[in-house]
Amino acid sequence: MAKPRKQPRPKAETPKGFRDYFGAEVSERAAMLDTIAGVYHRYGFDALESSAVETVEALGKFLPDVDRPNDGVFAWQDEDETWLALRYDLTAPLARVYAQHRNDLPTPYRRYAMGPVWRNEKPGPGRFRQFYQCDADTVGSASMAADAEICAMLADTLEEVGIERGDYVVRVNNRKVLNGVLEVAGLMDPAAPDRFAEERGIVLRAIDKLDRIGPEGVYALLGEGRKDESGDFTKGAGLSEAQAYVVLQFFDFNAQRERRLRKLEKLESLSGGRLKEKSREAILAGDYRNTDIPMEWRQRLNDFTVSVLRGLVDGSVPDIPASEVGLAGVDELEEIAGLLFAQGYGPDRVVIDPSVVRGLGYYTGPVYEAELTFEILDEKGRPRQFGSVAGGGRYDDLVKRFTGQAVPATGVSIGVDRLLAALHAKGRLRDSNIWRGPVVVTVMDRDRMADYQEMVGKLRNAYIDPDDPSKGKIRAEVYLGNPKNFGNQMKYADRRGSPVAIIAGSDEFEKGVVQIKDLILGAQLAQDATLEEWKERPSQIEVPRDQLVEKVREILAGQG
Amino acid sequence: MAKPRKQPRPKAETPKGFRDYFGAEVSERAAMLDTIAGVYHRYGFDALESSAVETVEALGKFLPDVDRPNDGVFAWQDEDETWLALRYDLTAPLARVYAQHRNDLPTPYRRYAMGPVWRNEKPGPGRFRQFYQCDADTVGSASMAADAEICAMLADTLEEVGIERGDYVVRVNNRKVLNGVLEVAGLMDPAAPDRFAEERGIVLRAIDKLDRIGPEGVYALLGEGRKDESGDFTKGAGLSEAQAYVVLQFFDFNAQRERRLRKLEKLESLSGGRLKEKSREAILAGDYRNTDIPMEWRQRLNDFTVSVLRGLVDGSVPDIPASEVGLAGVDELEEIAGLLFAQGYGPDRVVIDPSVVRGLGYYTGPVYEAELTFEILDEKGRPRQFGSVAGGGRYDDLVKRFTGQAVPATGVSIGVDRLLAALHAKGRLRDSNIWRGPVVVTVMDRDRMADYQEMVGKLRNAYIDPDDPSKGKIRAEVYLGNPKNFGNQMKYADRRGSPVAIIAGSDEFEKGVVQIKDLILGAQLAQDATLEEWKERPSQIEVPRDQLVEKVREILAGQG
Repeated sequence: MAKPRKQPRPKAETPKGFRDYFGAEVSERAAMLDTIAGVYHRYGFDALESSAVETVEALGKFLPDVDRPNDGVFAWQDEDETWLALRYDLTAPLARVYAQHRNDLPTPYRRYAMGPVWRNEKPGPGRFRQFYQCDADTVGSASMAADAEICAMLADTLEEVGIERGDYVVRVNNRKVLNGVLEVAGLMDPAAPDRFAEERGIVLRAIDKLDRIGPEGVYALLGEGRKDESGDFTKGAGLSEAQAYVVLQFFDFNAQRERRLRKLEKLESLSGGRLKEKSREAILAGDYRNTDIPMEWRQRLNDFTVSVLRGLVDGSVPDIPASEVGLAGVDELEEIAGLLFAQGYGPDRVVIDPSVVRGLGYYTGPVYEAELTFEILDEKGRPRQFGSVAGGGRYDDLVKRFTGQAVPATGVSIGVDRLLAALHAKGRLRDSNIWRGPVVVTVMDRDRMADYQEMVGKLRNAYIDPDDPSKGKIRAEVYLGNPKNFGNQMKYADRRGSPVAIIAGSDEFEKGVVQIKDLILGAQLAQDATLEEWKERPSQIEVPRDQLVEKVREILAGQG
Repeated sequence: MAKPRKQPRPKAETPKGFRDYFGAEVSERAAMLDTIAGVYHRYGFDALESSAVETVEALGKFLPDVDRPNDGVFAWQDEDETWLALRYDLTAPLARVYAQHRNDLPTPYRRYAMGPVWRNEKPGPGRFRQFYQCDADTVGSASMAADAEICAMLADTLEEVGIERGDYVVRVNNRKVLNGVLEVAGLMDPAAPDRFAEERGIVLRAIDKLDRIGPEGVYALLGEGRKDESGDFTKGAGLSEAQAYVVLQFFDFNAQRERRLRKLEKLESLSGGRLKEKSREAILAGDYRNTDIPMEWRQRLNDFTVSVLRGLVDGSVPDIPASEVGLAGVDELEEIAGLLFAQGYGPDRVVIDPSVVRGLGYYTGPVYEAELTFEILDEKGRPRQFGSVAGGGRYDDLVKRFTGQAVPATGVSIGVDRLLAALHAKGRLRDSNIWRGPVVVTVMDRDRMADYQEMVGKLRNAYIDPDDPSKGKIRAEVYLGNPKNFGNQMKYADRRGSPVAIIAGSDEFEKGVVQIKDLILGAQLAQDATLEEWKERPSQIEVPRDQLVEKVREILAGQG
């Protein structure tokens, strides 16, 4: 063997934008993914684990004639010149897998997948280049029942991982409705999707300024144009009054306030009673998810949303034509809502919400999003809504790239890290067994290692709660560092988050006893106990060695 | 948006050497990893998930001045010129993580990790470039108790995933013993590890030919050299007779046959009885794991192995010096065995076996290997031992690369795919719930979708066995393909491995009933039933709709 050249020491660093996950962080995520997989599996979805590496060609986002096509992905060239890359999501690989194996897969094919994906992006605070995704998709079914099923499954999943009903809402929309509105407003030609791109841009930028320049300002930008306070003129999209009305009705819920008021008054007179002021305010503001609104009203409001949308695309607005695609979208929306409501997924869980758009370009029909509705404090201590934790929709063209045939598909992706953060915020995770450190058997006498090992073996083979084996067995370990300094052993137990330490030296072995130290109680006492309390509730007790397991169990149960 | 250039369709293919895993393959592996994680966690090991991407510098196997250092790994250059690569195992990242975070980690640090690793190798049949590893390591403890613990944990893990006691053995050895033997045979200089490399090569090649050329041939090659039948002369290693004796005693168990016989006779006369012929044969052949040998004898044989090894390096062979490193190795071996036997991990589970070497160069002390001892049929139908499924050892120098300080460490890696294959071979997996397809609710009337969804919802919310919730809830789905052709729905259920199909058309809805078809029984009947059996055990029955869940449960229970 040739002597290797002397080299400087390598740096012990994670690559930029990557991180390591330790202990309970890993176990918690694994437990949550397990629960999610359980729900998906029960719904008939099959697991799929595709390779982390794909050909750049199959990922398809990149041009093969670029010299180094690693824009957004981590890519490299294989021995045979093929460009390979790490997957950037789980949907592109699904399209590849389905196209490749379609003759062996059932149709429709329900599959779920969970695992890391990689993005070659500029890392930032809290933004990592490797993160988890957890997807469920149904490939090969055009039925709205497939979309409804995924929305229902999403609600079930959130509840099963620990988000209570009322703390989330699944918001449903349909891309075709948006396209229909754009069409009747003269902003989209279904036969030539690239036409009117400039006008669409002006409109979408105007809508974005709604908060700043108000409905009148937007209205002006939708029409001829707008002169701002400094006198600068911004060219408008050139829409007619009727066209601008339709766009504003769709995008600006506040523009519908008057219409809502009329509907509300009509519904009130029919049901013979005026709603409470809080509910009325929420309804007029378009906040249909507000829990002040009685349930049966929320159902009515969902129906109302559908009828408003239908009214925009069915030709009933003067001077505005009907849109086939828009009407199809409204029908689909109505069908999904109907299926969900019939199964008991009512407006306390599912809401039709035209503001759901979802960024990805490939959605072609229904889109949906799960939002957590409780408030958390942000880094500055201000309360804010937790927001979206999952989203998805229908994408009927993804497999076509490979096979030439359109294959209908719909699916959802759960943001695993955000969902974990939400569960932490709700305090649903910390008290679980996952966070508890092991019982530490300390080493007082190095030659007694076999005895310590025996004790630890007994603990490990004992159930935490003999009446409930599902809680598992006691987690326990022998101290394996240098036992000379006992203080180090206790510091170690502290760092491990150990609930209990076992102590046995030659005295104890002679007497056939062990010392058991309740470290949680000990820490509490150390913090705020009086001398009396110290004496009354000793955190360390001596028990016969054959009562070790029993006593440890007792202490663990007391710690909860 | 500019119109993209027309491009040929991408190929729907996994990159060369990669594969996809479907359904139960994924779920089974996940369940097995879960079980393993449970044992590791109970032993006080903490999960670690490091990033899949490391700097090539940290992985350390490669020279940074090579233009494209992807020899064995998948590597690419980051924006800032840093070379990054996919990890090729879980040990190199552990060393990096420990060096980076050592001030925040407990000492000793017990960690487990499971996940894919990547090798940029020529793919071959059954050899993939991405596969799973599942490791547990203790960093920062020099104690043999750390090694013993990992051997015990390995045995517990195998039993917990379903390998019965007697079907596996954990074989333990120590690298220092081998080094000591090489040292006293004049084949290694501990102060200059590169010396005698040529002679070592001759010896190791000679040992490899043992089966073909016999002990005499090897003996000749260890000495001056050997003339084969064709008259060609092969130069030997030039060892003295005494040196060659030591080497053969160590490497060739058969060379010890006479010595074993003397020991056996002595032990027999002490214990006052002759062993059965089968046991004697196994002992003389060095097959101490043979279950024909009574347990107390197997314990004695382990002790005997240690004493043989000690005799080779303690200076008791005439003309052969003692080896400090060899003696240290024998002591360590004895200590590990003593700790394990004291905890009840007897010779039915743990065996000292000098033939365990383990390939990796970085092992410095104890090495261990878990072997499955039952026979399976190979691809040609011949019985063969299943072989190794896990291995590891002590590597005290790995962290040193980063910090300059030696950090003792020991750990094991389980070959996840081999262990899964073993469980399949033993029939421990197939009958589990994982492989059962969903109950399929067929669609006879498209307008009744809400009714079908309701049925499927009821099934999904019902426990398979109300007396044992741990078995989970019923897996069920609605058929979401085009319902026109009923035959396609039954073909779909077949492909899904469905145990039961539910059928309800307008007749059934009017009568308030459903048809339940037992697909497993149906398939059996179709294969070999007489007409009478068909009539007596109908595979399809009609029940009132409110008995749907109850009846499905009954059928599932009957299918086992």
